[in-house]
Amino acid sequence: MTIPGVHVSVSGERFRVVYRLTGREDEALVKAREICFEQTVEFPEELTPPGDIRERIVGCIEALEAQDANHFHAVISYAVETVGADLPQLLNVVFGNSSIKPGIRVERLELPDTFLRHFNGPRFGREGLRAWLKVPLRPLLCTALKPMGLPPAELAALAYQFARGGIDIIKDDHGLADQPFSGFRERVERCSEAVARANRETGFNCIYVPNITAPIDGLISNAQFAKSSGAGGLLVAPGLIGFDAMRQLADGGRLALPIMSHPALQGSFVVSSESGISHYALFGQIARLAGADATIYPNYGGRFSFSREECASIVAGTVVPMGHLRPIFPAPGGGMSLARVPEMLELYGRDVIFLIGGGLHNRSRDLVANCIYFRELVEKM
Amino acid sequence: MTIPGVHVSVSGERFRVVYRLTGREDEALVKAREICFEQTVEFPEELTPPGDIRERIVGCIEALEAQDANHFHAVISYAVETVGADLPQLLNVVFGNSSIKPGIRVERLELPDTFLRHFNGPRFGREGLRAWLKVPLRPLLCTALKPMGLPPAELAALAYQFARGGIDIIKDDHGLADQPFSGFRERVERCSEAVARANRETGFNCIYVPNITAPIDGLISNAQFAKSSGAGGLLVAPGLIGFDAMRQLADGGRLALPIMSHPALQGSFVVSSESGISHYALFGQIARLAGADATIYPNYGGRFSFSREECASIVAGTVVPMGHLRPIFPAPGGGMSLARVPEMLELYGRDVIFLIGGGLHNRSRDLVANCIYFRELVEKM
Repeated sequence: MTIPGVHVSVSGERFRVVYRLTGREDEALVKAREICFEQTVEFPEELTPPGDIRERIVGCIEALEAQDANHFHAVISYAVETVGADLPQLLNVVFGNSSIKPGIRVERLELPDTFLRHFNGPRFGREGLRAWLKVPLRPLLCTALKPMGLPPAELAALAYQFARGGIDIIKDDHGLADQPFSGFRERVERCSEAVARANRETGFNCIYVPNITAPIDGLISNAQFAKSSGAGGLLVAPGLIGFDAMRQLADGGRLALPIMSHPALQGSFVVSSESGISHYALFGQIARLAGADATIYPNYGGRFSFSREECASIVAGTVVPMGHLRPIFPAPGGGMSLARVPEMLELYGRDVIFLIGGGLHNRSRDLVANCIYFRELVEKM
Repeated sequence: MTIPGVHVSVSGERFRVVYRLTGREDEALVKAREICFEQTVEFPEELTPPGDIRERIVGCIEALEAQDANHFHAVISYAVETVGADLPQLLNVVFGNSSIKPGIRVERLELPDTFLRHFNGPRFGREGLRAWLKVPLRPLLCTALKPMGLPPAELAALAYQFARGGIDIIKDDHGLADQPFSGFRERVERCSEAVARANRETGFNCIYVPNITAPIDGLISNAQFAKSSGAGGLLVAPGLIGFDAMRQLADGGRLALPIMSHPALQGSFVVSSESGISHYALFGQIARLAGADATIYPNYGGRFSFSREECASIVAGTVVPMGHLRPIFPAPGGGMSLARVPEMLELYGRDVIFLIGGGLHNRSRDLVANCIYFRELVEKM
């Protein structure tokens, strides 16, 4: 249903944001009109100058469609000039002030191809990561080094066993930082070396992906150190350091390592279905805009509360056409067990990274055997 | 009420986080136990190694206190070593993964003075900003240059009138970025010059505070350009570029300009009372940790939905003792009008920045007269 009286497209290049609004139809229309002003001129309608500012800069409601009696999707377009050409300002125009109002959720972004040229997006994407790992077809296997508190030598010993067992991606748990019990540099050197040694023995192409999330002034040097130590990827938590910091790493010419995005501190965006940002937009579209090659999120049925549908929507966001931006890997984790692999294969198909952490420890005490079992389970499907 | 069976302090230096948990008492206790593991080892209890990791690294429930039948405050302590010494990892340990679980809200941080030594916090704080502006006692007057879409010359003309009228702080609207209709550099030069000219004429010490929020690789150069052009402060939206980017600006020796923090994209943290981060912790404590000298937030009764109590809690967070960290200014805005100044003075007292944007335009067409009226209103209270 389209509401009569809603403006229809103005001239010039525009991008669109679909907002999910809570309220009756009349309330939703008021909210949509408020968003048009709040996200741009931040002026009451009567003070907004006529002409170009009123006609082009103010957001424009292109459609208002009922989802049910109390929820509407408003499609609002903005002139591309409101953003210029950068990610922080895109996020600002999409949701800066309106994030502070209840009952407004960003459902999805619709960005024209010409506008997307301002963004490089993922450097590797699905195909690039498969080529990097030399795994052309099957799902990718990933685990995490943990628990926090282990010294680098013990983490490296774990990494060696995982690599021997045929895991593709061994990442730091996101809680591993630069801590007295496990300094960043020693950990990265030891774990990189352990994985390289295992690869020489097995002929596999396992990569170690250290968590380089750190104070912003040390981020690039962490990435450079990781690369020079032989790490095969970078784990970054954009909720902790900003999406644009991840974008900078992805754009950085000489670094050229795949990036896995971790959801730490992003939960508040998705914890309510009536506010924040949708799983699809946050873990799919925005992660891609910010250069992630794989997007980690908690799978349904683990120790978090995402639903199967929300997880499926993330997958959709990782692959929906977005100009020249590459599709990226969904990497569901968070309390996954080996027993659930067959069921997960059903939902995710082959283009997925299975992230199993603790669940890889409790099949038996032999970690190498557990990894081999995991790999065979996936290969035979 | 304290729950029997809850662990009591372990050895070594620890910091505390108070979480508000939704659920019955037994559910809250389960949630609290889960947080202890989720925020540290991310391992099931049975897999967590005994000894130091189990005893010190895992979080420790120090108290569980009923707020009402369905809400509990859990005080959980963490070893300072889990953080090391940086802001992103502090945010990670406080709320990284638990942000993704519903019914958990960070209520407040309790950080020992020795731990706070890792953070410089605000460079100016309340006293420093008063000295910078040469306004020792009364509330500070602030307005915003808007609407988005005006060219630099028109924004500068507005800035000149505001400065002539005796406003203390003229900030860019947070929607002003580096846009085709208003390039960052031209805007900063013209507005700085306009304010300096007005100051020469009035003898006042008005400052222009441009929005320097930008891609992370251009942030420092934006700040340097602003400083060299004569800007008197920096507007930063840490929700868009990360808290640590603001911290870096505050720490940067040669920049040395006061920082105003804008709440864009931070709304999702506070929009639910059952999840996210409290107003007190987010706009008070964390803004201070991240180096803001003033924290902007939407006042109660404007066009946003914060309550009077939530605003009062932000004020409390700006001034609560936090080691050597300076108290900072609350800067309520968001649809404020001149008519509400007396009532706001009652809540906020003199240590406040009154941020009135659109409301300063609609008293009369004479902006200078409107500003003079605003200033007299505040001075005579």
